[in-house]
Amino acid sequence: MVQFKKMVVIGVGLIGGSLARVLREKGSVNEVVGVGRGEANLKRGVELGVLDSYSTDAREAVAGADLVFVATPVCTIPKVVAEIAPYLAPGCIVTDGGSVKETVVTACEPLMPEGTFFVGGHPIAGTEHSGVEASFSTLYVGRRCIVTPTANTDRVALEKVVELWKVAGSTVPLMDPVQHDLVVAAISHLPHMVAYSLVNAVDGYDRFGGDLLSFSAGGFRDFTRIASSDPVMWRDIALTNREAILEMMDFFSMYLEKLRTLVDQGDADGLQAFFLNSKQKRDAIL
Amino acid sequence: MVQFKKMVVIGVGLIGGSLARVLREKGSVNEVVGVGRGEANLKRGVELGVLDSYSTDAREAVAGADLVFVATPVCTIPKVVAEIAPYLAPGCIVTDGGSVKETVVTACEPLMPEGTFFVGGHPIAGTEHSGVEASFSTLYVGRRCIVTPTANTDRVALEKVVELWKVAGSTVPLMDPVQHDLVVAAISHLPHMVAYSLVNAVDGYDRFGGDLLSFSAGGFRDFTRIASSDPVMWRDIALTNREAILEMMDFFSMYLEKLRTLVDQGDADGLQAFFLNSKQKRDAIL
Repeated sequence: MVQFKKMVVIGVGLIGGSLARVLREKGSVNEVVGVGRGEANLKRGVELGVLDSYSTDAREAVAGADLVFVATPVCTIPKVVAEIAPYLAPGCIVTDGGSVKETVVTACEPLMPEGTFFVGGHPIAGTEHSGVEASFSTLYVGRRCIVTPTANTDRVALEKVVELWKVAGSTVPLMDPVQHDLVVAAISHLPHMVAYSLVNAVDGYDRFGGDLLSFSAGGFRDFTRIASSDPVMWRDIALTNREAILEMMDFFSMYLEKLRTLVDQGDADGLQAFFLNSKQKRDAIL
Repeated sequence: MVQFKKMVVIGVGLIGGSLARVLREKGSVNEVVGVGRGEANLKRGVELGVLDSYSTDAREAVAGADLVFVATPVCTIPKVVAEIAPYLAPGCIVTDGGSVKETVVTACEPLMPEGTFFVGGHPIAGTEHSGVEASFSTLYVGRRCIVTPTANTDRVALEKVVELWKVAGSTVPLMDPVQHDLVVAAISHLPHMVAYSLVNAVDGYDRFGGDLLSFSAGGFRDFTRIASSDPVMWRDIALTNREAILEMMDFFSMYLEKLRTLVDQGDADGLQAFFLNSKQKRDAIL
């Protein structure tokens, strides 16, 4: 089994805390050091037994580490890696949990000193809670962690990162960073863009003479649940996965326009076929 | 309390069966006759005590009735009303449960003989089950039934239909049929059009080199649940509420285009404001 002496978790929240918990539980790490800006959260991490110790100075913390997990918001990952890179021990593997990969991997790879390794990853897991308090060791069980090697990725380091996520209980598909970003743009980012636009449109509709949203029933509320997601996190995702999101938004708009034409023309057969294909494809992924 | 001697339910499923059950339970009807094409379902309605008797001939059944509830698919409501109109007793009130109102009310009002009355209604209630077997007397408790009078609507008949839905446990907002159709287009029909388009787009995406849908996780499945809705029912809704749906689809597309521009321009402040407004407005209707 994969084995690390000293793991540093930068950003000790649900994602970082949960990985530390499971690796410690399985005996895959000897020591876990947490890094973050909120000292109360880090102290709580020690109290909960997630961390052995903590530091608010990432450069100091990474000394002698053989594994660094960067679990900060996606926009700050390259900043963090730039900060710690000169202080990494030879052989150290740096990996991340960012939900966008191309910009992160492209920014981080050239920052790594000779003999240290960056491997991008994205555990597709989460709950509506955050902070180390919300972390638990089975968060990744049965989930997928997509790992995104490039032509530059060290094969031994890659193998270790794959193993680490397997220890956590995940299946670990490998994917090119660009391909990864298209997948998440399609199945996660596009639905969010659509839901945010839908709520804003219904809220902004001004030809009704009343508040349309006040008539919303359970169905509307369920459908738009993701439109209540954290605006700052989604701003960052939209900024970092710009091209893939635009690609998927444009592709979606083509289909919306197709449907609009069917509605406009009152095309009964076309409408039924459009709805039926959707139903069949969705039922197949249940 | 409102009182009817003979109620005829045309289309004895979840909607029709549940209204019959509650009116009988509350003592608001003396006799309930069911009409439908499936004799097995009608027999079951009698066995369950929902109906006193049934007929497969609507014209015969409505003789002597003072209340007719048309709970068939929305496209066939005008056809049913045209068929029964010449056989209605003086004073009879015909109401319906269709989810689109303007086309239905406009088609049905002129069909009514002098001294009989049409009042449009739309109980916003339902479950994923159908058929008389699925009906229950508390389906409408705490829900809304929108009743849609026009300038032609008899005020006494309107009052009785409003009372009837209050007996069933609903609140009963009154709304112009066109206004009603815009409300449901916004909070129900538009989300369905969007969800169907989303699944078809992700299914149809051909620049990936793999099956995008196979990567869908729980979030995508939850968001697209309504894209598994009955294609025939939604074909009919798209055909009958065409104008309001087009209006709302175009309004939605404006907002999607606004968001596309923000993403394209990498406008951090604009993106955050767009997402934040959506979150705040949605959180307010929880």
